[in-house]
Amino acid sequence: MTKDNLTAVLHGIEDMRLEQRPIPDISPDEVLVAMDSVGICGSDVHYLTKGRIGHFVVTKPMVIGHESAGVVAKVGSKVKNLVVGDRVAIEPGVPCYKCDHCKQGSYNLCPDMAFCATPPYDGNLTRYYKHAADFCFKLPDHVTMEEGALLEPLSVGVHACNRAGVSLGSKVLILGAGPIGLVTLLVAQSMGATKILITDLVQQRLDIAKELGATHTLLMKPGDTAENVADRVRQVMGDEPDKSIDCCGAESTTRLAIFATRSGGVVVIVGMGPSEMKLPLFNALAREVDIRGVFRYCNDYSAALALVASGRVNVKRLVTHHFNITETAKAFETARLGTGGAIKVMIHVQPRNINNPVKF
Amino acid sequence: MTKDNLTAVLHGIEDMRLEQRPIPDISPDEVLVAMDSVGICGSDVHYLTKGRIGHFVVTKPMVIGHESAGVVAKVGSKVKNLVVGDRVAIEPGVPCYKCDHCKQGSYNLCPDMAFCATPPYDGNLTRYYKHAADFCFKLPDHVTMEEGALLEPLSVGVHACNRAGVSLGSKVLILGAGPIGLVTLLVAQSMGATKILITDLVQQRLDIAKELGATHTLLMKPGDTAENVADRVRQVMGDEPDKSIDCCGAESTTRLAIFATRSGGVVVIVGMGPSEMKLPLFNALAREVDIRGVFRYCNDYSAALALVASGRVNVKRLVTHHFNITETAKAFETARLGTGGAIKVMIHVQPRNINNPVKF
Amino acid sequence: MTKDNLTAVLHGIEDMRLEQRPIPDISPDEVLVAMDSVGICGSDVHYLTKGRIGHFVVTKPMVIGHESAGVVAKVGSKVKNLVVGDRVAIEPGVPCYKCDHCKQGSYNLCPDMAFCATPPYDGNLTRYYKHAADFCFKLPDHVTMEEGALLEPLSVGVHACNRAGVSLGSKVLILGAGPIGLVTLLVAQSMGATKILITDLVQQRLDIAKELGATHTLLMKPGDTAENVADRVRQVMGDEPDKSIDCCGAESTTRLAIFATRSGGVVVIVGMGPSEMKLPLFNALAREVDIRGVFRYCNDYSAALALVASGRVNVKRLVTHHFNITETAKAFETARLGTGGAIKVMIHVQPRNINNPVKF
Amino acid sequence: MTKDNLTAVLHGIEDMRLEQRPIPDISPDEVLVAMDSVGICGSDVHYLTKGRIGHFVVTKPMVIGHESAGVVAKVGSKVKNLVVGDRVAIEPGVPCYKCDHCKQGSYNLCPDMAFCATPPYDGNLTRYYKHAADFCFKLPDHVTMEEGALLEPLSVGVHACNRAGVSLGSKVLILGAGPIGLVTLLVAQSMGATKILITDLVQQRLDIAKELGATHTLLMKPGDTAENVADRVRQVMGDEPDKSIDCCGAESTTRLAIFATRSGGVVVIVGMGPSEMKLPLFNALAREVDIRGVFRYCNDYSAALALVASGRVNVKRLVTHHFNITETAKAFETARLGTGGAIKVMIHVQPRNINNPVKF
Repeated sequence: MTKDNLTAVLHGIEDMRLEQRPIPDISPDEVLVAMDSVGICGSDVHYLTKGRIGHFVVTKPMVIGHESAGVVAKVGSKVKNLVVGDRVAIEPGVPCYKCDHCKQGSYNLCPDMAFCATPPYDGNLTRYYKHAADFCFKLPDHVTMEEGALLEPLSVGVHACNRAGVSLGSKVLILGAGPIGLVTLLVAQSMGATKILITDLVQQRLDIAKELGATHTLLMKPGDTAENVADRVRQVMGDEPDKSIDCCGAESTTRLAIFATRSGGVVVIVGMGPSEMKLPLFNALAREVDIRGVFRYCNDYSAALALVASGRVNVKRLVTHHFNITETAKAFETARLGTGGAIKVMIHVQPRNINNPVKF
Repeated sequence: MTKDNLTAVLHGIEDMRLEQRPIPDISPDEVLVAMDSVGICGSDVHYLTKGRIGHFVVTKPMVIGHESAGVVAKVGSKVKNLVVGDRVAIEPGVPCYKCDHCKQGSYNLCPDMAFCATPPYDGNLTRYYKHAADFCFKLPDHVTMEEGALLEPLSVGVHACNRAGVSLGSKVLILGAGPIGLVTLLVAQSMGATKILITDLVQQRLDIAKELGATHTLLMKPGDTAENVADRVRQVMGDEPDKSIDCCGAESTTRLAIFATRSGGVVVIVGMGPSEMKLPLFNALAREVDIRGVFRYCNDYSAALALVASGRVNVKRLVTHHFNITETAKAFETARLGTGGAIKVMIHVQPRNINNPVKF
Repeated sequence: MTKDNLTAVLHGIEDMRLEQRPIPDISPDEVLVAMDSVGICGSDVHYLTKGRIGHFVVTKPMVIGHESAGVVAKVGSKVKNLVVGDRVAIEPGVPCYKCDHCKQGSYNLCPDMAFCATPPYDGNLTRYYKHAADFCFKLPDHVTMEEGALLEPLSVGVHACNRAGVSLGSKVLILGAGPIGLVTLLVAQSMGATKILITDLVQQRLDIAKELGATHTLLMKPGDTAENVADRVRQVMGDEPDKSIDCCGAESTTRLAIFATRSGGVVVIVGMGPSEMKLPLFNALAREVDIRGVFRYCNDYSAALALVASGRVNVKRLVTHHFNITETAKAFETARLGTGGAIKVMIHVQPRNINNPVKF
Repeated sequence: MTKDNLTAVLHGIEDMRLEQRPIPDISPDEVLVAMDSVGICGSDVHYLTKGRIGHFVVTKPMVIGHESAGVVAKVGSKVKNLVVGDRVAIEPGVPCYKCDHCKQGSYNLCPDMAFCATPPYDGNLTRYYKHAADFCFKLPDHVTMEEGALLEPLSVGVHACNRAGVSLGSKVLILGAGPIGLVTLLVAQSMGATKILITDLVQQRLDIAKELGATHTLLMKPGDTAENVADRVRQVMGDEPDKSIDCCGAESTTRLAIFATRSGGVVVIVGMGPSEMKLPLFNALAREVDIRGVFRYCNDYSAALALVASGRVNVKRLVTHHFNITETAKAFETARLGTGGAIKVMIHVQPRNINNPVKF
């Protein structure tokens, strides 16, 4: 094992630095992971440009990155599920295991969750990173490291579709064709949705959504009113959506989701928007349209991995750009500006073919 | 059967008239009911004073009343569940039976629902009223006609607690100690809630709530901010509520419900407030606090009747005033102004002791 | 409309006759359907050879057939969802609509269900058949009449998978690769199951299952013990199934399903076997493996139609033989003996291309 | 802290000994509990008389006891929820926290569960016992130590009623009026069941059930057939039970539960009977009556404690006998023979009034 532990550290707003960090020691239940691929998430960009998300504030240097995969380099004395050399996807949050939320199967709500790259916890855009062994998922040989890293956003899609209760014959409206909208589309399909309409402000994104299997697309314009678009959704779809999943979280999309959803249906909101919103709540209440949030994921990584490993979904299509860790600044710039139609930007900590039996 | 069919008809805003109507003919699946007791609901008062609720507008004379019980006077040729003389509570809405909502067990969402005293359908503050036999619930002898009429608001409480998922050991916050708040309290208790905090702006109502079994009460003041009251709720309760049921539906109470509810919990909103609200939605979403409306009830009358018949709840305590149908104007005035601490005002179409083996 | 109403009538054990019946009159909520395609179900064969299924006994002549599609020939005065000429699939059971089971969304449990070709109700292997309009599902042009008829067994698969709670990443064990096993396979795939192992005693059936998407197959032999096969299931699958769906209903397969299923999982039993079984119940109880039956289907036709119409599943592959109604005897013989590898045998009441815009 | 650690150790069949054991050391997440009250469970007696339960076999000396409460004597360095002197009830099983069952909220199914007095794990009929702090529940002052110990069987009742889905207006059939049947009765009542019929072979037990709130009782006789008793259940109850909870687990009671339960209802089986049973499975399947086991409890202690602390149930009535730890042999004899109408026999490790602000 080399002593090199080059790490991308966020020191403050617009202040990301590559620096050496000590290789961490592991405890008996942990593994040390030689990181391979780390995707850039919107939240990473947000911390870089704003220094905070809600009440999570970067007050001291924090390693960035949480969509990741790597290779086990060392295992703790009590670890049974992994051996050195295993290629693993990393579920980035480790809960306390012992509070009521954890015991009831909702560990994503654990108040003591240590989550990668959420202050004050370090992320894993670094050469060596330690993690709880039970939150590392062994990848079959035919799954690439990039696919492993993509399990993170895919798990958000799984959690969103589970929260929505997508099932056989569901008619799903997805608001926003960014990375989260697209993984939600892939998952909704896989769960049996037979009509999926996806909206966006950018036609190019809708084209990709169509290619990935959206049955209908709707290009929105900034001035649209929610009521009008709701009518168009129903016309285009030839049906009322019974599940609407808002992957933007803007007031306008949430309003649209409420108006468009069938009585008795569900509105799920994944994107995190402004702290206050003006909403047509009466419309939802009187039609028993339920409103549910999505906070990360919980017990969803296995299903996400099974989806990818079984070849049921192709997440590779989402990766538009690949960079080396030494190019981290450029990678973030690309993600931030959407340069070259960027959807998902991937950073490689190792040379790209080293841990991939098949081409990533 | 007498020819007298004195009926309370709403002709427009502030224009209620007592007039004779023809006794209706029944079809094979219907019964004719000699009405006995009819409670006044907030919605009845609303139609009287505003002429509308949401998009339901009184455009032609409409019989008022929908919280009711009576005695079967005639049965249709296909009716098997009832005979003449049966004392029945009337579930006031009859759906189409055949749409997807009906077939899936959510008939309250049926778009073709004919609901008493919701335009354009007549209510049943009248001497003779016909109704679908399968929506009439036979009362045991020891259940009074007033209790039968009270099954209607009680069913709202049942539906609210079902929607909230109240269960053993639930900690419930109820906002508003009016009739709906109080029935919700009774139901939540019966479903195993072990802590119930109820709020109101009026101490006298809280006193009744306490008497009915609330474990905690909290007097609110008009100027309170939602965040502050949420803190006080937790202090007084010694716990975070996992179910909050807003029986007011005002922006302020809905905001409070969101802030006060435990992560992973549920906010149910029964009261119908303004069409638009400013809400701290992000707070709910990021903590996966679900928001659910309540539209009337569905398959809840049986449970409401079983509760009353088994002696598990005492709904009689809610009735503060009794009037004769000829005093309808005064009854509405009392309900409207809350005169004499009015909670539930009951109108008797028959002399009060005629159909009650035990004192109502 | 011709006066010809050739009809296949079961008069008793081994006594099926083709005879003329009067064309039925329709009531306001019904449609008259010019039948096109009728599949033969195992239960049809059972009535022919045994004269009964459980407590349903053929005591008077009964028209056979209930997997069917046709063209609307006449509509009742109150019918709004259909017009003459609509091509429809027929959900063969019509419930009372008014009992608790119906109102709660479980109309398949309605004790007053009138179900095609279940004594004493006539089926629809006939030229003209009347049916409740709300249980006729309009087919899009690109869906063939045979596919319409196949919605019936497909709905059984939908109901079975719903009862099992198949979801994303489920590992499903299916016992039996007959028509019901195969539709269950198709549905489980569509709901996101990522591993599906199917068993049978006949290799040829397993080959078809493999072709339809089973990830694993296991050939069973008559002498196998349930415990041993359970071990082999886990070895072959590389996992424990969390949902096992028994499409045989024999004691041996039910025992296998119990032993093989993961703790906390579900065993669903579709096939109807002997009235008494010797079961390792303790094994299921102590591991909280739930046991659930499947009785027909309920609110599943829409999803089944959406699956077929969206091209997500190919049910046509199941049809191995096509006969004319005049060849009914031969068709039943083929179904009964499994001649020529028969899976699903289809009887055409109309010439085969008459109602099919695309080749069936 | 005294050095005395008198402990009841099971050395083999009919070989229980009182002996000194070392006081255990605790790890950072544990507490040392000075035990106070330990109830005798049927399983304790079973180990004494048979040396095994199913595949759990006593192969080396094992401390007996698992229904218990005590006082915290020492706290580990990381323990935050408890301090020395806290009176606690002990949930006797500690899972691995990290397997899928644990993470999904079903820790009772964890294959690595360490459960008191289940081989090879020691129980806690001893003066000093160490336990995971997060499985100790602090008792309010007004809850006695005996009530604390009774939370264990009460939690079984909670889990059984949760598995059955008991809710408002449920009609519950309980088979067996022993300790588990009686706690199930108390819980079912608290969750809103409005009719509860309980059966037993002993009238005296039914009398206690009646006193505790059963609405109906039915004395069974050894020769009864399940079908006949099912009919009598419906006659006595005036209704079909929608939830049947078998607290015996004998073939005869499970058969009865199946025949008696309403279509679409649930049969829950708590008692663990023979490994093989002959069952009328077809009857359950064709009516979609689900069969579910109960394995201990999971996330149920809090609700059980809330029930007792709120005064909603009176579990004290179940305790018929109190012994000192030095009288362990006699206590077991009493439990085993049911001497003096024994229901629950309690063993006190401390003098009875020492840790009880109010009379136990």
